[in-house]
Amino acid sequence: MNEKPPILALTMGDPAGIGPEIVVKALAVAQVRQWCRPVVIGWAEILRQAADQLHLGMKVRTISDVSEARFEPDCADVLEASPLKPEQFTIGKISPAAGVAALEAVKAAARLALDKKVDGLVTGPLNKEAIAQAGVPFTGHTETLAEVTHTQNFGMMLSAGKLRIVHVSTHVSLRQAIERVKKDRVLETIRLADEGCRLLGISDPHLAVAGLNPHAGEGGLFGNEEIQEITPAIEAARAEGLDVTGPLPPDTVFLRGSQGEFSAVIAMYHDQGHIPAKLIAFKTGVNITLGLPIVRTSVDHGTAFDIAGKGIADPADMVEAIRIGAQMARAHQKAA
Amino acid sequence: MNEKPPILALTMGDPAGIGPEIVVKALAVAQVRQWCRPVVIGWAEILRQAADQLHLGMKVRTISDVSEARFEPDCADVLEASPLKPEQFTIGKISPAAGVAALEAVKAAARLALDKKVDGLVTGPLNKEAIAQAGVPFTGHTETLAEVTHTQNFGMMLSAGKLRIVHVSTHVSLRQAIERVKKDRVLETIRLADEGCRLLGISDPHLAVAGLNPHAGEGGLFGNEEIQEITPAIEAARAEGLDVTGPLPPDTVFLRGSQGEFSAVIAMYHDQGHIPAKLIAFKTGVNITLGLPIVRTSVDHGTAFDIAGKGIADPADMVEAIRIGAQMARAHQKAA
Repeated sequence: MNEKPPILALTMGDPAGIGPEIVVKALAVAQVRQWCRPVVIGWAEILRQAADQLHLGMKVRTISDVSEARFEPDCADVLEASPLKPEQFTIGKISPAAGVAALEAVKAAARLALDKKVDGLVTGPLNKEAIAQAGVPFTGHTETLAEVTHTQNFGMMLSAGKLRIVHVSTHVSLRQAIERVKKDRVLETIRLADEGCRLLGISDPHLAVAGLNPHAGEGGLFGNEEIQEITPAIEAARAEGLDVTGPLPPDTVFLRGSQGEFSAVIAMYHDQGHIPAKLIAFKTGVNITLGLPIVRTSVDHGTAFDIAGKGIADPADMVEAIRIGAQMARAHQKAA
Repeated sequence: MNEKPPILALTMGDPAGIGPEIVVKALAVAQVRQWCRPVVIGWAEILRQAADQLHLGMKVRTISDVSEARFEPDCADVLEASPLKPEQFTIGKISPAAGVAALEAVKAAARLALDKKVDGLVTGPLNKEAIAQAGVPFTGHTETLAEVTHTQNFGMMLSAGKLRIVHVSTHVSLRQAIERVKKDRVLETIRLADEGCRLLGISDPHLAVAGLNPHAGEGGLFGNEEIQEITPAIEAARAEGLDVTGPLPPDTVFLRGSQGEFSAVIAMYHDQGHIPAKLIAFKTGVNITLGLPIVRTSVDHGTAFDIAGKGIADPADMVEAIRIGAQMARAHQKAA
């Protein structure tokens, strides 16, 4: 297993979106086949339609177990985990059937990883509204994976070129985000960032922590969260042996991170990290899930119904997610 | 006057910092002499030392009135507005004498602009601490200019490549910044942005307003400032005939602005605007003062005492500030 590239399960995401297109386009990228041995968890007929429309010369075959995969460069091995036919939905339209089938595929892929039949997961975009319309309880892609793998504490690392970001909070109001800047939570995020870097094979992570306020508070002049919460968290992390610097002025720490100065930057709130990430890597942003017992990366974009089925979706994000997923799976194999 | 390039007063900033170096380097850039006719407000002997150290072949001559300037490409015309000798301070060290002399030079330059002896001001970086050590009351560079020109309402536009940003607030804590996101203040900022674009010669500004919260609040799910304050401000601005769109998700609006989609983006707080600005234009960020009766641009960096006198300071910011200052002065002449 150590000599061959890792086996990665690729989920197609919501098939009414751009998922099938970016998966089949990514499978046609020669480097992808060098980085990993891919197995698609999805629907052969739907993937075949995407491949044919794109004239990629990519064949599609169905397998019923990962062991049957042949990993031939011009052929996609597809494991059908949840039944769905092309006539059950319309490309570019919200479909409860497609949404739920996509969710089931993700769960199946996670179980394959838990069973060590695959070395990691790379996931295409789901559509929350489609799943909601089906009346299926769903809080998020990553939350579903945490549930399947019985994980309590998990987090997300955003990879954008040389910049890696872990957030103290994400989808809450800015007011609430400020309330979440507490020593314990910042410390936990620093630990997660360190762990995430190690999962990527970085043996000696050098972390930077952004301040919350302009100029990182300028000594208490513009807010005191740096003094009361962030600095104590950094000191506690250092006491645990972690290599952490900060709090640094938010308006330059991400620039420095993008130049490779830090292994990862801890962001205090959603946009503090997402504004630079989108600027640096609008097309190659990758989400890395931290804290799970399995390797998982994901594209950092949505189902893009507006361009689905038009053949113009850019697979760069998916290719980058596969590259990083393979890197993590190799590091995971070495550590095992 | 319309045929010749505008006359710009360049202040050297705190002479203990990189100001003299970036001014003399900028004066040696051929394009600068095409864009404007520059007059330095500062100290001939100090500028000469910088020029000699850099072997730029730039001569320095003293003038006592702008009318005496010759604008020769290989010579800097220097008007001495406040006395200072090189032996009164050490390059790279905080000096009250240098700080105050620099501040006086700025005031003198502003008066020249008010008297229409120059068409605009381009300012080098001051050092707040140096001025404070001298016991001179000082809240900020722009505040000083507002005082000299008897201006009540003023603001700042940050220019970074194709991205222009006007902030609702800047140097306050993030908590306070949220409190400042009120309809009237956002509306005032939109108006300032529109005015700023027109000062730059953009006759039909197309403005975008960023949200405060992630995804611009996602319909109230992550905060309600978009609904209660920002959208009403946008609607009021539209009722005044301004072309405004938003509130848009903060993590993509600056990317879109950097691609030239908007004439300017209104940022809700310091780092929302400064994070993308520094990423896009770390070396060519320019501050444009809005609301003053005179044209004024400024470099977006500090005195950089750590590299002062070493000959390695990059004049790109100063050159860009001169380019934009000249553009504004020309637009101002046309409008007059």
